[in-house]
Amino acid sequence: MHSVNAVIDAIETKKFGGGLSEEIVRSVVGGYTAGEVPDYQMASLLMAIFIRGMDYGETLALTRAMAESGKTYSFPGCVDKHSTGGVGDKVSLTALPIVAACGAPVAKLSGRGLGATGGTVDKLESIPGFSCDLAEERFTRQVEEVGLAIIEAGELAPADKEIYALRDTTGTVDSLPLIGSSIVSKKAATGAGHLLYDVKRGSGAFMRTTEEARELAGLLVRLSGDLGIEASALITAMDNPLGSAVGNALEVRESISLLKNEPVPEDLNGEVTHVATRLLELKGIPESAAAVERALSSGAAYEKFEEFVSAQGGDIEALEDLPISASVSEVRSKRGGYVARFAASGIGSAALALGAGRAKKGDKIDPGSGIEILVKAGDPIGEGQPVARLYGEREAERAVHLVLEALEISDEPVDPPPAILDSL
Amino acid sequence: MHSVNAVIDAIETKKFGGGLSEEIVRSVVGGYTAGEVPDYQMASLLMAIFIRGMDYGETLALTRAMAESGKTYSFPGCVDKHSTGGVGDKVSLTALPIVAACGAPVAKLSGRGLGATGGTVDKLESIPGFSCDLAEERFTRQVEEVGLAIIEAGELAPADKEIYALRDTTGTVDSLPLIGSSIVSKKAATGAGHLLYDVKRGSGAFMRTTEEARELAGLLVRLSGDLGIEASALITAMDNPLGSAVGNALEVRESISLLKNEPVPEDLNGEVTHVATRLLELKGIPESAAAVERALSSGAAYEKFEEFVSAQGGDIEALEDLPISASVSEVRSKRGGYVARFAASGIGSAALALGAGRAKKGDKIDPGSGIEILVKAGDPIGEGQPVARLYGEREAERAVHLVLEALEISDEPVDPPPAILDSL
Repeated sequence: MHSVNAVIDAIETKKFGGGLSEEIVRSVVGGYTAGEVPDYQMASLLMAIFIRGMDYGETLALTRAMAESGKTYSFPGCVDKHSTGGVGDKVSLTALPIVAACGAPVAKLSGRGLGATGGTVDKLESIPGFSCDLAEERFTRQVEEVGLAIIEAGELAPADKEIYALRDTTGTVDSLPLIGSSIVSKKAATGAGHLLYDVKRGSGAFMRTTEEARELAGLLVRLSGDLGIEASALITAMDNPLGSAVGNALEVRESISLLKNEPVPEDLNGEVTHVATRLLELKGIPESAAAVERALSSGAAYEKFEEFVSAQGGDIEALEDLPISASVSEVRSKRGGYVARFAASGIGSAALALGAGRAKKGDKIDPGSGIEILVKAGDPIGEGQPVARLYGEREAERAVHLVLEALEISDEPVDPPPAILDSL
Repeated sequence: MHSVNAVIDAIETKKFGGGLSEEIVRSVVGGYTAGEVPDYQMASLLMAIFIRGMDYGETLALTRAMAESGKTYSFPGCVDKHSTGGVGDKVSLTALPIVAACGAPVAKLSGRGLGATGGTVDKLESIPGFSCDLAEERFTRQVEEVGLAIIEAGELAPADKEIYALRDTTGTVDSLPLIGSSIVSKKAATGAGHLLYDVKRGSGAFMRTTEEARELAGLLVRLSGDLGIEASALITAMDNPLGSAVGNALEVRESISLLKNEPVPEDLNGEVTHVATRLLELKGIPESAAAVERALSSGAAYEKFEEFVSAQGGDIEALEDLPISASVSEVRSKRGGYVARFAASGIGSAALALGAGRAKKGDKIDPGSGIEILVKAGDPIGEGQPVARLYGEREAERAVHLVLEALEISDEPVDPPPAILDSL
């Protein structure tokens, strides 16, 4: 069917709540990517989908059509993880070297993204010399030789990229089937055979409730399975930042501490070892938890990280002393009590104000900027006690204000919240 | 509020079924007409409106904003009528000269339109020399002197024109609030003080059921009232073509017969006299029905028509012998029985195939082409009896096929269907 007829047909069907055939979906996605279907028709269809929904079959068809709209890779023996994004989320930086050290190879295609801090690519590039711009052949060879390689994903699922840009301006972002197909289409194009989804829920995440997060996680696992990926998912809390560090070089520094088996906040440590263990299970490696423990205590995990950094041009010597902003200020609590929450959304906004992230595509990141959280939910706190250290020169005053706003103090003792809420 | 913020706000509100404020509606319509709001955002909003609906206040705000988006006229003393469009609908051509002859002045701004035949402007321009391209001053003077003038409406409600074009390609045409606001915005801009809506329902009309037509009619009357127009409405049947003639010059010829008080099919005669009577009532002219009867029997109606044609440059002599296509063929019934229906939709398609209408904007009409229906619903019919005469050279074979398909024959006697179904 010609794509222009297909999109009209799809609109007429979906506006009354009907189902779209795989042929129609494929024709619309292909036509839109080829520029034959105009934005205004696609926008009309997306709103009809937003309101009327899509059943599983339609969502799978959309996911497959978007995954196949550009270049696809195939690494059936590799493991990968995907996080829906949170503040201070450095699980890829840490769990992936661990599993690589345990014999599960990782071929990761990652993005820069928008948000409070950069994406994994941005974080790694705060290491002097490090580059994610590898030719495909070198990338594949590094996966074989080192067991861990990360490149910037440029041309994956171009249909998803274009549709996402349109959704962003037409009020059609927050739709479960559209979110699910967007995520899985990109992961399917990267071709890892074993995949763990980390679905964040909470004030700093896209999914606000555990129920919503569970629904999305279920959809991601099911879609992945039907596209030949062995997948499972975690639901993790994102009411507070993960660990202490928020910002690109700051997060790499905290990741190095974890990989060296030095003390890090328990929420971060717990989540990273859990994710690493689950990834090894997906790959079928026996006694996963013990293997993860051994990789950390033996130093093998950090050695693997150094080997990986070195292979991608990074300066190993610089890892001990990453370039962090010299503009530092401390924020102190205005009263005593117990930390009820250090709201991830507020800390994220503050990090963005300091230059750690991008508000819009093309914004320049200051890799040395960000925030160190000095108190975690549940901690007792005294009046005047330092609660955060701010790094960076941009909008520092506004950042202080945002950090103070994010700090919620209770008069009663508070139990530290669980980091992992559910798993499937 | 800036229009780009307004449209995002409107989308976010409407996609969850919320209501749009007058300020938001005005800002979106103004921004779209000014080219500040892109088509894809407007398309998303229109689909949200299509599915979620709009309440009366929102619909009135949209109507007013579109009416005021371009040039507006004001003829508070004049009467006008508006038909939602049907096959063989020549009520404007006939009822308006009648009411003008009875002392109710008519200032009509009309369009060319798409469909089976041209609009009123196209039909009148099949009279040699006749022009609807009058300067505003001459138009106003003719209304005063002749009591009847018709010009082509170019720049009325440009917002409606642009929104309609977008709806046409984004599956958002068949929405009651969008249809209602589109119709009334144009009528409000033409400025007649007294207005009768003729809402057609049936196979050849936009509204398929009487209930839908009644709902639209109610909305048109209410919107008009709130915009200062004294309005009422009829619901009329459009399962069969109105009268015998379908096509531009053919319809003018049949109109002349009616105005000369010569016999025409009863459905046409009944509807025209009813519409004319209702228009006189709206204007407050007493004993309307008798006045209409007198205007026809005395010849005053036809004299007024000649005066009007002459004032707009038409050749009065030519009215006796309008240029009709010399390519004529007769269609004969394949079997005997009673005419259950001569489906308006099929006859419309056949007229279009013969060249009487426009499938798309800019198509050239053959004014002498069209169809004469020789049997009406309820008529007994014999095998081989001529049922229609086809005029025109384009796709004549296909037209024969369409006409035969449109003819529904019953073995049992059939009551002629009523022409006027309801009135409000």
